Amino acid sequence: MFPILRNPLLFFTFFCIFSIVTAQKVHPLDPLTPFELIQVQTIVKKSFPSSLHNVSFHYVGLDEPDKSLVLSWQSNHHRIDENLSRQAIIIVRIDLKTHEIIVDLSSNSIVLDKVYNGHGYPILNSEEQNAAGNLALAYTPLVASVEKRGLKVEEVVCSPFTIGWYGEKRANREVRVMCYYLDGTINFYMRPIEGITVTVDLDQMKIIAYRDRITVPVPKAEGTDYRESMQKSPFDSKLKGITVVQPDGPSFTIDGHTIRWANWEFHLAFDMRAGPIISLASIYDPEKDENRWVMYRGFISELFVPYMDLTEEWYYRVFFDEGEYGFGLCALPLEPLRDCPENAVFMDGYFSGLDGTPGKISNVFCIFERNAGDIMWRHTETGIPGEVIREVRPEVKLVVRMVSTVGNYDYIVDWEFMQTGTIKVNVGLTGLLEVKGSIYTHKDQIQEEVYGTIVAANTIGVHHDHFLVFHLDLDVDGDANSFIKKNLQTKRDKRSKRRSYWTAISETAKTESDARIQLGSGAAELLVVNPNKKTKLGNCVGYRLIPKSEAVSLLMDDDYAQIRGAFTKYNVWVTPYNKSEKWAGGLYTVQSRGDDTLATWSLRNREVKNKDIVLWYTLGFHHVPYQEDFPIMPTLSSGFELRPSNFFEHNPVLKLKPPKQIYKICPNSSVPPDQ
Amino acid sequence: MFPILRNPLLFFTFFCIFSIVTAQKVHPLDPLTPFELIQVQTIVKKSFPSSLHNVSFHYVGLDEPDKSLVLSWQSNHHRIDENLSRQAIIIVRIDLKTHEIIVDLSSNSIVLDKVYNGHGYPILNSEEQNAAGNLALAYTPLVASVEKRGLKVEEVVCSPFTIGWYGEKRANREVRVMCYYLDGTINFYMRPIEGITVTVDLDQMKIIAYRDRITVPVPKAEGTDYRESMQKSPFDSKLKGITVVQPDGPSFTIDGHTIRWANWEFHLAFDMRAGPIISLASIYDPEKDENRWVMYRGFISELFVPYMDLTEEWYYRVFFDEGEYGFGLCALPLEPLRDCPENAVFMDGYFSGLDGTPGKISNVFCIFERNAGDIMWRHTETGIPGEVIREVRPEVKLVVRMVSTVGNYDYIVDWEFMQTGTIKVNVGLTGLLEVKGSIYTHKDQIQEEVYGTIVAANTIGVHHDHFLVFHLDLDVDGDANSFIKKNLQTKRDKRSKRRSYWTAISETAKTESDARIQLGSGAAELLVVNPNKKTKLGNCVGYRLIPKSEAVSLLMDDDYAQIRGAFTKYNVWVTPYNKSEKWAGGLYTVQSRGDDTLATWSLRNREVKNKDIVLWYTLGFHHVPYQEDFPIMPTLSSGFELRPSNFFEHNPVLKLKPPKQIYKICPNSSVPPDQ
Repeated sequence: MFPILRNPLLFFTFFCIFSIVTAQKVHPLDPLTPFELIQVQTIVKKSFPSSLHNVSFHYVGLDEPDKSLVLSWQSNHHRIDENLSRQAIIIVRIDLKTHEIIVDLSSNSIVLDKVYNGHGYPILNSEEQNAAGNLALAYTPLVASVEKRGLKVEEVVCSPFTIGWYGEKRANREVRVMCYYLDGTINFYMRPIEGITVTVDLDQMKIIAYRDRITVPVPKAEGTDYRESMQKSPFDSKLKGITVVQPDGPSFTIDGHTIRWANWEFHLAFDMRAGPIISLASIYDPEKDENRWVMYRGFISELFVPYMDLTEEWYYRVFFDEGEYGFGLCALPLEPLRDCPENAVFMDGYFSGLDGTPGKISNVFCIFERNAGDIMWRHTETGIPGEVIREVRPEVKLVVRMVSTVGNYDYIVDWEFMQTGTIKVNVGLTGLLEVKGSIYTHKDQIQEEVYGTIVAANTIGVHHDHFLVFHLDLDVDGDANSFIKKNLQTKRDKRSKRRSYWTAISETAKTESDARIQLGSGAAELLVVNPNKKTKLGNCVGYRLIPKSEAVSLLMDDDYAQIRGAFTKYNVWVTPYNKSEKWAGGLYTVQSRGDDTLATWSLRNREVKNKDIVLWYTLGFHHVPYQEDFPIMPTLSSGFELRPSNFFEHNPVLKLKPPKQIYKICPNSSVPPDQ
Repeated sequence: MFPILRNPLLFFTFFCIFSIVTAQKVHPLDPLTPFELIQVQTIVKKSFPSSLHNVSFHYVGLDEPDKSLVLSWQSNHHRIDENLSRQAIIIVRIDLKTHEIIVDLSSNSIVLDKVYNGHGYPILNSEEQNAAGNLALAYTPLVASVEKRGLKVEEVVCSPFTIGWYGEKRANREVRVMCYYLDGTINFYMRPIEGITVTVDLDQMKIIAYRDRITVPVPKAEGTDYRESMQKSPFDSKLKGITVVQPDGPSFTIDGHTIRWANWEFHLAFDMRAGPIISLASIYDPEKDENRWVMYRGFISELFVPYMDLTEEWYYRVFFDEGEYGFGLCALPLEPLRDCPENAVFMDGYFSGLDGTPGKISNVFCIFERNAGDIMWRHTETGIPGEVIREVRPEVKLVVRMVSTVGNYDYIVDWEFMQTGTIKVNVGLTGLLEVKGSIYTHKDQIQEEVYGTIVAANTIGVHHDHFLVFHLDLDVDGDANSFIKKNLQTKRDKRSKRRSYWTAISETAKTESDARIQLGSGAAELLVVNPNKKTKLGNCVGYRLIPKSEAVSLLMDDDYAQIRGAFTKYNVWVTPYNKSEKWAGGLYTVQSRGDDTLATWSLRNREVKNKDIVLWYTLGFHHVPYQEDFPIMPTLSSGFELRPSNFFEHNPVLKLKPPKQIYKICPNSSVPPDQ
């Protein structure tokens, strides 16, 4: 949750050149350019001059045109349509009120300015997070508490945490500040200063409550620093060099934000809330000689991270990493050769700071072809006398990666596109645990509930969950789709010697309640089909969801945390497409009350059959920490797959030639000649 | 299920040289060398000369020494122990009786010859499968049936299928033969000749029953041939060349069958039944400066593949790919550059044919380092004023791969070793569906249960399952281990504003019944721990199983197929180590009656607490075919992870230096210099 100090000045020269080069050619879903962000800032500031108003920007993004307009633009060969105006949506606090402003960028005007009076607040901006941390550091009682513990104030860093909502009638815009100790390590997250609760009112930017309840030892610094330069020998065995090589360059092209690779085409945008947004993903079907729609839009709608410690200083740690901190805003530049392989190409992202000034995140995405040694399909046939037939196609995939570092945690998000038509999403969790300082130095001393695992002396790795809910607006061969649950049901057949078998009984969800699914409650195939498009054989064309995790929230339904994160109660939801239903935890997630979530929208129980529908998948991780997670966690991964299922008439990669064989890369290479 | 015609003569010169080179240095778990296989053949034939006896070999493998002897050999720096004799186990049919023979290779003698009188028969050998197929092809009524269908006999190929057991009191050693049609394709599996049942008695090698019940159209040949040479333009877009490069060679060494890579050491053997067997896997812990035991033995114990069609010609298709066909025996040479990447090293495997003559499977395994662009761990720290700290370690893994082609299906098995201490297993399913000929050419015509999906005209992809049960004899820091199920239980706490949380309640399995688990019935962590070895913090050292599939068998308990494959009723089982309990479907799986399975052993409900235990994980796939699976299936993968969990004192790869950076691979390369 720590903010990033980026220098907006350095950025200016860049964006000026940038805007000249690319201003002409805009895709309706392109993220706002730095030029447009400045334009937004100028327009808003003109209406609400700083001299008269207290203005702070919390979100600026593209107000995407209506889906119908985008689709018609796409099908009309990108002909400019005057209805397809370019607009920005701005969420801004003006004089302590939340405004939703829509700016029309072509007419240079505000077309909507609505004050939001409902529950919850917008994403915290980096600057106010910094300010809240600094406020605590300068606060005399905190300094006294630090000194009372025998600690040096200059080695303390503080970070604000969102506080959620626990039934309070009135809720000012508040955060709690948690402090940590450096003194000999950069891994301050392993050194929490427990027992102190500092409450900051963000609108007043003032500490409104302070309590130093209990003193707990701060864990020691030794062994926590993960920097290569700080390690002492003996070192682990170093592997010999290994790299990927593409002598003729990559096989993909990037045209603005449109990426084309093999049979795929899609649009990739950066959003300061969602991070990567994949749009208009289509795949070329050589048999039909056309690009066929697969997904209008795919992105992570919310992350819900509840901790399982109910003590005074911990119970409120229930984070919504997107709606509270901005999953895109927390992304940081990827490191070439380490975060992404040698053959990666990078893309930058832009956001708006506190006063609307654009900032740049260099290398926010990387795009590369993954050559992992996998096999796309194969068979060896020995059943024909005198013949041995072997056909193998190696698998190469296209990966789009972003890493978001939300405070202590690093989320690696990979969208993978496969020539078979499959889209895979992998999420890797790494970074640092959120640990709790403790009096205990050995497990045998622990006789009470400590809400976690002892992972180091005086250090408890607190139990928690990570739930990532994906908004998957599949448009399988068009936007009128249905959701089918094929239940695998056991049948008895007395006439047979076998006695039983299973068969697939398809149920088409009529309304939203039919499509809410807790996985693990029975074997089933989950499909989004187009009931209006059939294969030549009469099967509905479809894509199926193959989940890798079945975790759902274990919190009780009346737990305030669960009310706010109610979308984690089911792994799968289906809703009719609604432009406004983007954020599963609500648009105003900070101190939200759960009245605007996927779960509440879905209560209307709307019809979802043969409609433009959105599939939501909640990817969950229950995290019981282990000592290996200290002081930095080896990546733990999970994900899901969207796989064409009767979408193509047959295996779509039958005619695929294997990638060009590379011959003699280096003088010393022993790779055999092209075959 | 088609046999492989390998030429034993070609092989002889090779093995002679081979045996001279390597005879001296033998690991007690090394598979039998070709020389030893000949020795076995000679000894058995001397006792049972062909002139007097009808002898056929069905299995020859290492009769592994007692675990205690192997462990003491290993801990005594490989000092030769006279108790550590080298023995072979041979399963052979002699004059229509099954013999289990143990040959001592040092004394050149048979030390045990036991006639097996129980239910079930040994693995089919390739030669008898061939013979049964040929018998059918030469059978006049079959020829008449073929001609009656207007088909050309010379275009027919036939394959024997095991028949299972359906409550019969008497059961001769029988197979059913299924025939297919080539005529314009090599993908005969897509062209079944339905309606005919040919029953062959293997001991008499004679057709004992024949029935031509019904005529069904044979699906057409067009579009079924998957060979590159047979594809017509337009071709799919070909990717540019991409490859992996290791200018200094691989980072692993292979010493006989012992593989060392990074911190890992393990033994890899080929077995004609199990395929790859990983033994004595240990990991070097630099902190303790010792190799620590992780797994004594890991292998696929059985594959259970029941089809879900109960018609007369299909109900018996319930296959045990290991116990009936030999998963190793069905492995075929891997194709360099396609089945395995450029940096792979290959290893051969040996088996015995019908008369005991050794055969070789070249390139049966490949071993390579996977550089997939993954991240082992990372963090970017921006919370310290004035500093941006970014540390990233890319992930490189070691992979051991085998592909077994059991008739139509290809199973890709990858054992992955990671420097973090994790062992991952991935299984990919590809190859050809077992389809059924049908009168239907369009879905709308189908008004009855067809037990599958129409995947092409006149072609039903029949519903089926794949269950792979893994024998995982973990020895975490020694052989006395316990199995712990950490249930994640929701707790209510009225004192807190939060109302609920989950905590982990550990249950140690006392007996086998405590450890039988159907996944999906509640969130839990599953660990094998050493209750006698603790970390400095007092946590039991352990490894946990992270399953990626929760599928269990959907068949009814009294279904004969399920009785035989009862190990698929649970995902997880734990048994005390017992040298004889290797094959989850029983040693004699052909026509077995389910009296010797993991499920029956486990009925004794033995103690498993603080014992040498074996963890069994059943990895299941329910396969509902889709049109994309026709005529050859894109790979579908799943697997599991064994992850150190309080095994190390902390993250074991903190001190790991990233692989050596490669600089200027080629003149045109744009890779930056070493950093």
